[in-house]
Amino acid sequence: MTGSPSPLAVSPADIDAAAKVLAPYAVRTPLLSSPAIDAMTGARVLFKAEVLQRTGSFKFRGAFNKMSLIPPAARAGGVVAFSSGNHAQGVAAAAQILKMPATIVMPADAPTSKRERTKGYGAEVVLYDREREDREVIARDIAAKRGATLVPPYDDAAIIAGQGTVGREIAEDLTVLDILPDVVIAPASGGGLVAGVATAIKARFPRTAVMTAEPEGFDDHARSLRSGKREPHLQVQGVVTSDREVGVAIATAFRELKLVVEPGGVVGLAALLAGRFEARGNTVVVVLSGGNVDADLFARLIS
Amino acid sequence: MTGSPSPLAVSPADIDAAAKVLAPYAVRTPLLSSPAIDAMTGARVLFKAEVLQRTGSFKFRGAFNKMSLIPPAARAGGVVAFSSGNHAQGVAAAAQILKMPATIVMPADAPTSKRERTKGYGAEVVLYDREREDREVIARDIAAKRGATLVPPYDDAAIIAGQGTVGREIAEDLTVLDILPDVVIAPASGGGLVAGVATAIKARFPRTAVMTAEPEGFDDHARSLRSGKREPHLQVQGVVTSDREVGVAIATAFRELKLVVEPGGVVGLAALLAGRFEARGNTVVVVLSGGNVDADLFARLIS
Repeated sequence: MTGSPSPLAVSPADIDAAAKVLAPYAVRTPLLSSPAIDAMTGARVLFKAEVLQRTGSFKFRGAFNKMSLIPPAARAGGVVAFSSGNHAQGVAAAAQILKMPATIVMPADAPTSKRERTKGYGAEVVLYDREREDREVIARDIAAKRGATLVPPYDDAAIIAGQGTVGREIAEDLTVLDILPDVVIAPASGGGLVAGVATAIKARFPRTAVMTAEPEGFDDHARSLRSGKREPHLQVQGVVTSDREVGVAIATAFRELKLVVEPGGVVGLAALLAGRFEARGNTVVVVLSGGNVDADLFARLIS
Repeated sequence: MTGSPSPLAVSPADIDAAAKVLAPYAVRTPLLSSPAIDAMTGARVLFKAEVLQRTGSFKFRGAFNKMSLIPPAARAGGVVAFSSGNHAQGVAAAAQILKMPATIVMPADAPTSKRERTKGYGAEVVLYDREREDREVIARDIAAKRGATLVPPYDDAAIIAGQGTVGREIAEDLTVLDILPDVVIAPASGGGLVAGVATAIKARFPRTAVMTAEPEGFDDHARSLRSGKREPHLQVQGVVTSDREVGVAIATAFRELKLVVEPGGVVGLAALLAGRFEARGNTVVVVLSGGNVDADLFARLIS
């Protein structure tokens, strides 16, 4: 490999360290199987049920790891983050455990349920107008005024190392089960999850393909990965899924796995069921990354 | 203890034997926790997520254990069972693994989805008229004609030993975690689950209270347990839950646990949330026994 390492590069040792930090607080989520989905796909499929994580998504892992590295002197200033979704809840829950004040900058039109959940973890929610205001500017302003630490959603080595513990647990469980995975697929999301998972998986299983899935129209990450610009050393391949495929996957997870998975978290299963990559005869690990979905939307998607 | 032991009594050793038989086929379901539900109840709550079991309920365990004890010479005759629900799927899936023919006697008005799922495991479905016909007579008839073995839903020692592996896994996990449970609560259902779970739990934790929960109007089991006639040696206490409480529990499991739980399987959580027993300050294990619920009903209950 030529060129200098990216500042975002994390090593398996960084992920080991994050695993130690997270052990008392994060759920060690199970790897589940479904004979019905194996039969549908002709693959041996294992699901990393990260919907069962604290706050309902993997985001808690990165947020908690990042925040536990804030030096004691800086903790009283608290943390600030901008997010309307899973990162907000992850940061708020981590702050509650670490006894730090947390401020979350959220769009004024975010669903009430998300605001309430974030407040439920004891965070202060600051609303902004999506049309006229810049959330990053607001967050940096709050950070400067209060001496708070900004917790970014993904472009951060400590966040990536925390998310990487998802991959580390997968690798550990597969080793115990004596299973060699052909493919591990996870939502592309901001890239932090896949970057961490790929590092942990490749360290144990160098020949396993690590893939990302994402919804149609949100495939910047897939494109940047295909173009090889972003994380060339990880050699991650991206696939996209349609809205209809996402709906089918949510209904299938409801029916066969008895799990509640959100649209953004189910894309790996959507890609598998839609045949977007070669699965037949292979062992495939699908990361179901989150389950925070409004009841009305979920009800519509399963009916 | 005076009097002769019941023919249905199972020992911890019977449950150990069942665990060995089930190990390659049953899912070792996880024990999950939810900080949000702990906060709601003031208890430390652990959920035995048996919704993640093969066929979506604990019934697979008892059926498979029972059927694996059928002597080789009798296997060609197959099995027969009467059930419109989880027992049907458990028997059908077990028969498929054991390569035995299975016939399930189901009411003609059972939901199509349940018929289809049972057929999906390769079983033959025989319909009967709930008003005019007796399902037990039909099943015994088929058994006599085909040389098939009748697999009863609960009043059977091998079934109870199989269901008891739920309790055995709970006891094992709690021992590893060094947790002493105050209460273990499970759906009363036909009694097989609780009888097996109580045996396994009491063997490891003699002072733990084992309780049953069931829906209002279906509380025969609670009454018979309260009257002390049925399983006096197990000293199981029963509580009942209302329809409204069951609905709240299903919505809470959706929102906080990201699990799909059926009305009959969620009654332990319903009783906990409704304060039907003393939980505050206690460690409580709630068995979520099954997740086979129609999408339309589930959609209504969570919205």
